[in-house]
Amino acid sequence: MEPFTVRILGCGSALPTLRHYPSSQVIELREKQFMIDCGEGTQIQLRRLHIHFSRIIAVFISHLHGDHCFGLPGMLSTFGMTGRTAPLHIYAPSSFEPILQQTLDFFCQGLGFEVIFHGLDTTQQKVIYEDRSLTVETIPLQHRVECCGFLFREKQMLPHIRRDMIDFYHIPISQINNIKNGADWITPDGDIIPNDRLTSPATPARSYAYCSDTRYIKSLSKQVQGVNTLYHESTYLAKDADRAKLYWHSTSEQAAKVAHDAKVGKLLLGHYSARYNNEELLLKEAQAIFPNTILSQEGMVIDV
Amino acid sequence: MEPFTVRILGCGSALPTLRHYPSSQVIELREKQFMIDCGEGTQIQLRRLHIHFSRIIAVFISHLHGDHCFGLPGMLSTFGMTGRTAPLHIYAPSSFEPILQQTLDFFCQGLGFEVIFHGLDTTQQKVIYEDRSLTVETIPLQHRVECCGFLFREKQMLPHIRRDMIDFYHIPISQINNIKNGADWITPDGDIIPNDRLTSPATPARSYAYCSDTRYIKSLSKQVQGVNTLYHESTYLAKDADRAKLYWHSTSEQAAKVAHDAKVGKLLLGHYSARYNNEELLLKEAQAIFPNTILSQEGMVIDV
Repeated sequence: MEPFTVRILGCGSALPTLRHYPSSQVIELREKQFMIDCGEGTQIQLRRLHIHFSRIIAVFISHLHGDHCFGLPGMLSTFGMTGRTAPLHIYAPSSFEPILQQTLDFFCQGLGFEVIFHGLDTTQQKVIYEDRSLTVETIPLQHRVECCGFLFREKQMLPHIRRDMIDFYHIPISQINNIKNGADWITPDGDIIPNDRLTSPATPARSYAYCSDTRYIKSLSKQVQGVNTLYHESTYLAKDADRAKLYWHSTSEQAAKVAHDAKVGKLLLGHYSARYNNEELLLKEAQAIFPNTILSQEGMVIDV
Repeated sequence: MEPFTVRILGCGSALPTLRHYPSSQVIELREKQFMIDCGEGTQIQLRRLHIHFSRIIAVFISHLHGDHCFGLPGMLSTFGMTGRTAPLHIYAPSSFEPILQQTLDFFCQGLGFEVIFHGLDTTQQKVIYEDRSLTVETIPLQHRVECCGFLFREKQMLPHIRRDMIDFYHIPISQINNIKNGADWITPDGDIIPNDRLTSPATPARSYAYCSDTRYIKSLSKQVQGVNTLYHESTYLAKDADRAKLYWHSTSEQAAKVAHDAKVGKLLLGHYSARYNNEELLLKEAQAIFPNTILSQEGMVIDV
């Protein structure tokens, strides 16, 4: 099975600490890489984690707070200096376009690649990107500014060929694709071998949902129902729920509630407030409600 | 003697490496701190080096390349979040004003302190800042975009009081200031004790010049003549002089020539190209021309 991974470049929140970088992740599926959010220092994390700059084809920005996008100007400049030629797609709330354009005009003249901006409507769940392997949808979130999460859905793959049956019936290689796509096999004697004897069911398509930043939304579980891995911000402990409410953030308990209600495979916590020296308490609180929870950490690679 | 120090936050050049942060320094004299340049990650370095955000009263930006200013938006946001109320002065080439304004308007609404912008004319050597303790002058440099260095000159201090003479003549405390300012002392018997018997000469005023980024300018030595400490960019080795010329940078040999011609106290190298894994070669090259040369490194504190 092709790896479908999430690499954590940063999982801190707005105030800088020496333990965390601000938000950024790289999603990889079939040789393609996608970045979600790009806080200050993201390009350093790319270097540190040996991620090739050139394979990132798109950057998805959830919202326009600095800890989610201040790394973009430096990263774009560096992409230019290191000879990138492939276009880079940037998906972000529409109001970002003039800011980005001014930055490009002023600091990135003569960039050797095209930056293609796609304005997002953060209020709708909608497919914003599609290729042969996956789709990316927006997930409306509720924060102090317009904000959306991103749902990466692998496309349903074709069934697996049963090598033993292919050998048994002496089926030529040229027919494999037809059989993968559902064809039966007719032997030289005219016998029909039904497709389901020649194949085994496809690996179920996988999905990853990124939800940051947001206050607790009870109905969010519907939008991320059954995803394999859910990243949900957990800025605060339950005891600081008032603060979470004030700043439109979530507690780890609330993140776990969404994971539980959505029956996801696993929950990944992140966007930790700088006020906690130890995130284990956030983890314990979430695990009491949703046991299969892990703490994201810089450098971690999660198999979706 | 009051400490007059330069702290290196970053001394790398435009391409990010894991060994260096981009340009930033903090100058401190008599409890006041001034920042020069603010590359991406500067606010992290402030945290790492335990520099109190609130004591920085001004930021001087030499030129508008990203590795000298992309850390500013994040740092301003963080100053706001950590409750700064004191105004912050930003000195930068005038063309930066609309960019900065757009960033403030979009990302820093409700900032609890005032940002006061001072546009610089980088073509003139001119005092741009003055307080009781020091002046700061621009130093015109030659780079691909308009660029200036900064010359921090401590003001000439008053002479030292000779405690033994004060005691000997039973001079009251109330007269000390007058004597420091040049008054003689008249004894109750009418004898005149000349000022130079009551004082010893003031400590010579110190000075620090920051020159980055620039190509080699032969006449620069006149502008930084006799400074105690000169920071001069040394992006390249002499063998890469063609590259230095192409990008309007200097070699370490050229930096040393300026230091030698200007008869400075010591030379501080920095703005190292990412192409060298080891800066010792840059150091050796410079020391052959100007022996009292040191390599700047992140975290280093230099006594001017």
